[in-house]
Amino acid sequence: MSSTKAASNTTAPTQFLEANGLRYAYRRFGNGSGRPLLFLQHFTGTLDNWDPAVTDPLAAGREVILFDNSGIGRSSGDVPKTMAEMTRHVIAFLDGLRVATCDVLGFSLGGVIAQQMAQDRPSIIRRMILVGTAPRGGEDIMHLEKPSLAKRIQDPTNRGYDVLKKIFFTSSPTSQAAGQAFIGRLMQRKDDRDPPPGPNVGAAQLAAFREWERFTGERFADLKGIRHPTLVVQGVGDEMIAVRNSYWLAENLPNALLLVYPDAGHGSLFQYPESFCKHVTAFLSSDSESAVF
Amino acid sequence: MSSTKAASNTTAPTQFLEANGLRYAYRRFGNGSGRPLLFLQHFTGTLDNWDPAVTDPLAAGREVILFDNSGIGRSSGDVPKTMAEMTRHVIAFLDGLRVATCDVLGFSLGGVIAQQMAQDRPSIIRRMILVGTAPRGGEDIMHLEKPSLAKRIQDPTNRGYDVLKKIFFTSSPTSQAAGQAFIGRLMQRKDDRDPPPGPNVGAAQLAAFREWERFTGERFADLKGIRHPTLVVQGVGDEMIAVRNSYWLAENLPNALLLVYPDAGHGSLFQYPESFCKHVTAFLSSDSESAVF
Repeated sequence: MSSTKAASNTTAPTQFLEANGLRYAYRRFGNGSGRPLLFLQHFTGTLDNWDPAVTDPLAAGREVILFDNSGIGRSSGDVPKTMAEMTRHVIAFLDGLRVATCDVLGFSLGGVIAQQMAQDRPSIIRRMILVGTAPRGGEDIMHLEKPSLAKRIQDPTNRGYDVLKKIFFTSSPTSQAAGQAFIGRLMQRKDDRDPPPGPNVGAAQLAAFREWERFTGERFADLKGIRHPTLVVQGVGDEMIAVRNSYWLAENLPNALLLVYPDAGHGSLFQYPESFCKHVTAFLSSDSESAVF
Repeated sequence: MSSTKAASNTTAPTQFLEANGLRYAYRRFGNGSGRPLLFLQHFTGTLDNWDPAVTDPLAAGREVILFDNSGIGRSSGDVPKTMAEMTRHVIAFLDGLRVATCDVLGFSLGGVIAQQMAQDRPSIIRRMILVGTAPRGGEDIMHLEKPSLAKRIQDPTNRGYDVLKKIFFTSSPTSQAAGQAFIGRLMQRKDDRDPPPGPNVGAAQLAAFREWERFTGERFADLKGIRHPTLVVQGVGDEMIAVRNSYWLAENLPNALLLVYPDAGHGSLFQYPESFCKHVTAFLSSDSESAVF
């Protein structure tokens, strides 16, 4: 349960927690006076998809906790087909760790889970950062069959991490260079790595995204009850989750500040890690009831 | 030509520059290593509509220059009916001051002028901040006849600065309290004030806004040639200029970072002056070719 000494996702050992009848894989490192910061990962991502250029500077002021949800990486169990079920796993994991309240950084799929946590157990979140994500009832969310995405995902020359350079970054030379640097950072970790996801992972998570696009009643009304100070971040050229989803978050969450990065795609936080960590650090350092920092 | 000693818009003397066959009123104060920062004012606003909580912290790192365009405040001349003509006055003023390159903070109408300057004389701007403004071809820009605005503007109990509390801030108690504080700050200046605008000012400026809503050719294509690092800021609940205009700016300017404040209207910069100045200071402190800070 104690934090490790290594303050980098390149070197932090993977730990395991028995809870909820499952064995959850996680990493926990860093220290400082801030609340623990839980990272919730994107579609098919594992512990090894967290960029040390994002995790490590944030770990300088607080513990960070990286987490493999049920059926991901080395966590046991099945991959749920709904966001609600994935959320139950996160809450069970935090309960098992005896973390009553934390800050949450949710990226893409993880940002959906963060919103669901804020509704299902409001007290478990102090402040949250939603990156490249979408509200329930959003549009153009992870439609990998879109021609613009499908041609990159199915290109046989894009293997492993290389596909991330094509779908997380824009086609500009600057963005592609940032993508190459990002991949290099992910590859710095040599040992104790998660296995790559099997095909069942993506299928289940896509089913959950499809369900998340549906809504009943007044669209986005569910967001109005989430009072947590929230920082919404997205790349203006995100092709995986259209940026207008972040507009809807900012327009309907009552306490959310919106930051949109230029010439950036889904991986805006990995393209501009220095800026991102600076803004997130300032946001998390505030004890105000307002999201404004 | 030299800067004044007083570093506050509450006390800085109004100065006058003969140029372009006119006499322009302005204030110039502050000091530091940064480029001069030119403030371009909103619809019907004068030198006395600049909040010292915004001007003064920024004047701690550079000279700030506040400017009455032709026919505004104590500047001679007529109020132009086009943004292009207003822009020519700004450029003539800066040429008269021998300011070859500056940073620009344009609010509302002033943000339109800043965009036009960036196109007409790109070298005159290093970095720019566009607050509560809109691109050419935008929508829902300063339609004071909208019922939601008209009822507040025409309410006889809203006189002088009080109307700003109703149209620059949201109806929330927090935002209204910030509006009251803003008005208090504007009233701190006792002497050497500009006269209030006559009815001709608003009529001419509204004609310029109507012309700005029109476009020919590909919508927003003119923005793609503006390479200046740009910070776009707006309040999510802006009723005077709808926030989607800032979305269009961020989506079409190639080098713009977008920041949207929660529970804020047109006067977001005056509602959150501390946050606004912190972000603007960080943005202006960068010498990068990128807007990202």
